[in-house]
Amino acid sequence: MPHDLPTTLTEAATPALVLDRGKLMANCDRLKKRCQALGVRLRPHMKTLKSIDAARYALDGPDGGIAVATLNEAEYFAQHRIADIQYAVCLSPDKLPRVADILRTAPGFSFFVDSLHVAQHVVEFARSSGAPLRVWLEIDCGEHRTGVDPDDPGIIEIARALNHPAVRFEGVATHAGHSYRVPEPALLQSVADQEKRAVNVAAQKLRAAGIPVAGVSVGSTPTAVHLDSAAGITEIRAGVYMAGDLFQVAMGSLPLEDVAVTVLATVISHARRLNQIVVDAGGLALSKDRSTAAGPGPDMGYGLVLDVLGRPIISGLTIVDVHQEHGEIRWNSSLPFERLPIGSKIRIVPNHICMTAAMYGHYLVVDGAGSVVDRWRRTNGWS
Amino acid sequence: MPHDLPTTLTEAATPALVLDRGKLMANCDRLKKRCQALGVRLRPHMKTLKSIDAARYALDGPDGGIAVATLNEAEYFAQHRIADIQYAVCLSPDKLPRVADILRTAPGFSFFVDSLHVAQHVVEFARSSGAPLRVWLEIDCGEHRTGVDPDDPGIIEIARALNHPAVRFEGVATHAGHSYRVPEPALLQSVADQEKRAVNVAAQKLRAAGIPVAGVSVGSTPTAVHLDSAAGITEIRAGVYMAGDLFQVAMGSLPLEDVAVTVLATVISHARRLNQIVVDAGGLALSKDRSTAAGPGPDMGYGLVLDVLGRPIISGLTIVDVHQEHGEIRWNSSLPFERLPIGSKIRIVPNHICMTAAMYGHYLVVDGAGSVVDRWRRTNGWS
Repeated sequence: MPHDLPTTLTEAATPALVLDRGKLMANCDRLKKRCQALGVRLRPHMKTLKSIDAARYALDGPDGGIAVATLNEAEYFAQHRIADIQYAVCLSPDKLPRVADILRTAPGFSFFVDSLHVAQHVVEFARSSGAPLRVWLEIDCGEHRTGVDPDDPGIIEIARALNHPAVRFEGVATHAGHSYRVPEPALLQSVADQEKRAVNVAAQKLRAAGIPVAGVSVGSTPTAVHLDSAAGITEIRAGVYMAGDLFQVAMGSLPLEDVAVTVLATVISHARRLNQIVVDAGGLALSKDRSTAAGPGPDMGYGLVLDVLGRPIISGLTIVDVHQEHGEIRWNSSLPFERLPIGSKIRIVPNHICMTAAMYGHYLVVDGAGSVVDRWRRTNGWS
Repeated sequence: MPHDLPTTLTEAATPALVLDRGKLMANCDRLKKRCQALGVRLRPHMKTLKSIDAARYALDGPDGGIAVATLNEAEYFAQHRIADIQYAVCLSPDKLPRVADILRTAPGFSFFVDSLHVAQHVVEFARSSGAPLRVWLEIDCGEHRTGVDPDDPGIIEIARALNHPAVRFEGVATHAGHSYRVPEPALLQSVADQEKRAVNVAAQKLRAAGIPVAGVSVGSTPTAVHLDSAAGITEIRAGVYMAGDLFQVAMGSLPLEDVAVTVLATVISHARRLNQIVVDAGGLALSKDRSTAAGPGPDMGYGLVLDVLGRPIISGLTIVDVHQEHGEIRWNSSLPFERLPIGSKIRIVPNHICMTAAMYGHYLVVDGAGSVVDRWRRTNGWS
């Protein structure tokens, strides 16, 4: 039941997801310029913001491509006339009919494969259906999630299968997700190098075997920010940089002031005997992601508490515990109950914005100091 | 983009949320009978399943009431002609106009208050608007989330303010959320006693002060299952019992075979060198809830892996790690790659179903061995 657009955040129903348009634009421009300086295309990953309105700021030029993490996202962006959509996930063959449908509206749609078994299914489906499938070979650069090791001779066998007249073999792609596990940001440079080396090694081996490799795709927000040269790389994928979150701040990807997406909540209870303030944003509104607990910076609980305009109240004030719809603010000295009366609003910076934003059907878009200027729809889920 | 209803789970798009209707019915019947034996009404908490179709099995009689945790849920169930809806959360005064709207379709709508400040706002709003507000005084029985300590003399002051001709004072309510923190199920009996005692103490004090107390409401699934007498109690609220999850199994609320809601996923990658199978259900499809890691039973990672019909593959096989859309199955000896080829389906029992189910817009309803018989819509979010 969408309600009328509130004029200011103070009047908004809570919990709500707030997007600062000026900060989003600045974050998008910064990585676009960085990629231009490195001489690579930017392929913004829309798994984080899942909104066509956000994509328009993130696209690298009017015909720029995007990456997505679900077929539902692909369908949504295809409906909004994005033609070049990379599903940066290994496709299981049962999803091929859905892919054929997507290709009718997004002719540049492509997906990942990491096995000969699936490559053979893909070629067979393309031959029998005539669907113009486009496929990337996924390389494992050290994350050990999906992808083939670049030193595995199997990469040539898979690429050779995909290098078939019925299919367009797009090239090699990898994701340095292990960048999220480094104990300190200084080590990100070496992860970025490892990511770049893995796909370059794979591309060289395929080319040496006579298989043309046009695309060489890397990406994660921490490595995109730390890559110092893009030799051999054709495109960088990243997503979280648009919004930012506490984990990215701890990783040095951006300063706290640049975080563009926060959760708006209302104070619903005071317990002075427990030195506790409770808000109406809990485990669902914030997600149960606790990535700062294991990150290189301080443990930020379930999120950092700011005032309704996004300014600090007490440095390091956090949501210490959550229940489904309750968040508990506690502190090691007396809480400022007078500044946060029941009914007042706060903003919460989450640990991991991809997880938090997925709980909301739309963003309240603000420009500067709390004026609500728009509502942007998000797509969520899988079907 | 909802697709046609698949005939069997093997044909369903994934990830998807699967609800076994027979198990749901049995779980609902079991707690209904238990409450009948205890002589109390059951007020099913719909924050877990958020579906009118599920509510019809859970209701304690055709005019039975429900509890909800968001005003969005209240609006949804009001539209579906449930009249008696208890918003079991402390209301902040800014939400009163929305409550007045809900009361037009759900005349039995009520909410919680835990401060004199809000009680006074509520009475003033009821006087000036004429809205027939119904209010419960929330008591803290030891969870220390919201609610007033039953020994705080403030309870009489708040209840006296609410005992006003413009408002209907419904009674006292509490939630033993700390039942989720006991190290072993044997201690649940004492938490259930504590929950019951707290509201009975509060009710007695209010009655001694001349304030009528009609309703005495308790509830959490673990205490509801372990309560041995309901003396003084008029209603029990519980929600997770309908579905069950790994944490409830560890707490002894129900056996694993009775868990009614699971996540359907597809195998998308094999990495024999890492002894790893990857599925298309990750942190969003399962949630980042890790409650079994701190619970009384074994750590179940991000969920227990079963076959597509819900039968064990290897006892204790779990999703060990997740990324946004990837779940990693690993095991301490060789994984059964042949039994789980790429493209095959599995079912995953989550840690905490309230968090997991919130990621899905609907349930695929199955009856028995994997035939899909219906699709039930869920309501999610806050607006």
